[in-house]
Amino acid sequence: MFIGRITGSIVSSQKVEAMVGQTLFIVEPLRVNEKDQSDLTPTGRSFVVVDTVGAGQGEVVLCVQGSSARFTKETKTLPIDAAIVGIVDQVHIGSTEIFNSTEK
Amino acid sequence: MFIGRITGSIVSSQKVEAMVGQTLFIVEPLRVNEKDQSDLTPTGRSFVVVDTVGAGQGEVVLCVQGSSARFTKETKTLPIDAAIVGIVDQVHIGSTEIFNSTEK
Amino acid sequence: MFIGRITGSIVSSQKVEAMVGQTLFIVEPLRVNEKDQSDLTPTGRSFVVVDTVGAGQGEVVLCVQGSSARFTKETKTLPIDAAIVGIVDQVHIGSTEIFNSTEK
Amino acid sequence: MFIGRITGSIVSSQKVEAMVGQTLFIVEPLRVNEKDQSDLTPTGRSFVVVDTVGAGQGEVVLCVQGSSARFTKETKTLPIDAAIVGIVDQVHIGSTEIFNSTEK
Amino acid sequence: MFIGRITGSIVSSQKVEAMVGQTLFIVEPLRVNEKDQSDLTPTGRSFVVVDTVGAGQGEVVLCVQGSSARFTKETKTLPIDAAIVGIVDQVHIGSTEIFNSTEK
Repeated sequence: MFIGRITGSIVSSQKVEAMVGQTLFIVEPLRVNEKDQSDLTPTGRSFVVVDTVGAGQGEVVLCVQGSSARFTKETKTLPIDAAIVGIVDQVHIGSTEIFNSTEK
Repeated sequence: MFIGRITGSIVSSQKVEAMVGQTLFIVEPLRVNEKDQSDLTPTGRSFVVVDTVGAGQGEVVLCVQGSSARFTKETKTLPIDAAIVGIVDQVHIGSTEIFNSTEK
Repeated sequence: MFIGRITGSIVSSQKVEAMVGQTLFIVEPLRVNEKDQSDLTPTGRSFVVVDTVGAGQGEVVLCVQGSSARFTKETKTLPIDAAIVGIVDQVHIGSTEIFNSTEK
Repeated sequence: MFIGRITGSIVSSQKVEAMVGQTLFIVEPLRVNEKDQSDLTPTGRSFVVVDTVGAGQGEVVLCVQGSSARFTKETKTLPIDAAIVGIVDQVHIGSTEIFNSTEK
Repeated sequence: MFIGRITGSIVSSQKVEAMVGQTLFIVEPLRVNEKDQSDLTPTGRSFVVVDTVGAGQGEVVLCVQGSSARFTKETKTLPIDAAIVGIVDQVHIGSTEIFNSTEK
């Protein structure tokens, strides 16, 4: 899985029938800063994911890719390859908290 | 999933029987501009995808990869790893619309 | 799926029993030229694929990756992650033909 | 599979129900040093994985990706695409030991 | 599939039960030399794979990735995403032999 930030959303009126009603977010994957591991840095990549947990714009989320994106109640018959499966509250590197959703 | 623009198509007369009659488009993935997130920029990569929604040349579409490309009525028995599952109308980053299919 | 050119082949006498008799080609993926989209350019990567359509050395082919490589009659029980599912006759970008198998 | 070091962990209180109680580690993949193959070097990438073997912070572990991450007793119904399936004791390149978990 | 050279091995005493007794090799993928296609060159990447054919240190092997790594008798229930499915005897590019396991 990867950690990403919800940066946007897409609207698609003409789509596969099973996808009607699904929220499609754009997520930018984050990674632990390579230099000093003191924060999460954006990767510049863009993924489209289906939300299963009620996440919202700007939140940092846990995303799953591939066939496992269909292993939730909400997504099991969908033609999708990426889904949000959790909202990230905190990230720790060693004993240091480098991300907390209640700050900033 | 990823967002891409249909740039072309391929013709293949000698192919796996199940693929006869399928439209094979070339799609170039797009990503949100890293600098200011103000538009979608091309990535220079090329994918071949099967269309399931009646998309056409030049349109911006939502594509799924991997085994999930077989999770539509049209594609469930096909040896394919990528399919168009929606036509993109609008893309929003935060509250800003950065793509609208009715403009250019 | 991706488009690639068959550049070579491999011989493996000691292999998984199900693979006996399968043709193993080396394919170099091609992509649409980023600059002016006027031709297909090599990517420098190497994949090994199983042939299902009777393709030959030098031909440009359509390849599928992942579990879908097993979705043909010939490959359904094979431990393979890539297969040729079509021979490419023509590639069009917009209305321009950038590849034709009968030329060159 | 790939070898990685557990660098941290994430907390997610709002997540898919099946994921409740699962330990979510951040792992940085390692690779054999390209120059002289004398040690394992970090790649700067970040993956989130589910633990199935009782691994801990700082340990070097064996990780599996994709649908196979669901092929353990602990993970078979989880929407995950990466899992720790072993703790690495030693790594040998040729006859040279380049990693031993009991040192450093 | 990809071609790789077995460069080493790993020892993991604490692992998923199904993995007990499996040989875990480190493989470095090779690719056809981009310049003149005259030999196989190392890529600097590292994969961990399960052996199914009795391969050994230094040999050039054919590896499969993803769910298909489970499509051999030896691996069908294992949580693995990569397996050796053949030992490579020769590689030809066009009509030129660029690798022969009996030399060097």
